[in-house]
Amino acid sequence: MGMEIIFRPIGYVHHEHESVPRHWSVSDLEGRLEIDPIYLDALADTEAGDRIVVLFHFDKSPEFGASFLKQTPPGRDAPKGVFGICSPVRPNALGLSVVEVLTKVECVLTVRGIDMLDGTPILDIKPHVTGAVG
Amino acid sequence: MGMEIIFRPIGYVHHEHESVPRHWSVSDLEGRLEIDPIYLDALADTEAGDRIVVLFHFDKSPEFGASFLKQTPPGRDAPKGVFGICSPVRPNALGLSVVEVLTKVECVLTVRGIDMLDGTPILDIKPHVTGAVG
Repeated sequence: MGMEIIFRPIGYVHHEHESVPRHWSVSDLEGRLEIDPIYLDALADTEAGDRIVVLFHFDKSPEFGASFLKQTPPGRDAPKGVFGICSPVRPNALGLSVVEVLTKVECVLTVRGIDMLDGTPILDIKPHVTGAVG
Repeated sequence: MGMEIIFRPIGYVHHEHESVPRHWSVSDLEGRLEIDPIYLDALADTEAGDRIVVLFHFDKSPEFGASFLKQTPPGRDAPKGVFGICSPVRPNALGLSVVEVLTKVECVLTVRGIDMLDGTPILDIKPHVTGAVG
């Protein structure tokens, strides 16, 4: 399983909040997704009002190890397998948040639903699919 | 933006279908997520009946370049910015599928909703969140 897969940030999350909710589903905080201007055309069909999936790197998480295979989420009383919870400490430190686009100015998206720390590297933006994509 | 982020597969998708639908939302194909046995405890709370998010590597995609910033999806007549569509050719070749767990036997999940090619490297499994996570 040792093959390395290398990704590079397409941009970074920025905001001025001192703390963020533990999950996008309970966040109404606003922040900015500042995307590298080389991706301007890639954002051509991302618009205010859209809900988007943001994939990002939990770059502040400790290195994963066997002691993190099960973790007790905040407010729960028993450990859960990490693939069944939203912990930032995962075998691959990949995060997923669904946010709403409020404005787009060139390559800066202002969004609502922030649960990422300021400075978080963004890896991908996808449409939030709830129906069938034919 | 040049920082490298390195991930490693936690397992692989396997199935015997000759072709797959272009999107999980229109797939009822079954297949297996064969996860590395070192992650047995990480799967402790992933069960038959769950809908899960699978993050994976589009390892067969061509290298991304400027000519892929906008792409015309199958069945569409105009190019779209890649961050607004589900193309496998992306700046970071990250895929996301939502599938239903049918069975779990040790570290092998049989799932329905396959749109990944046989042999696809899996990077993460997360719960499919539709409500609020407190």
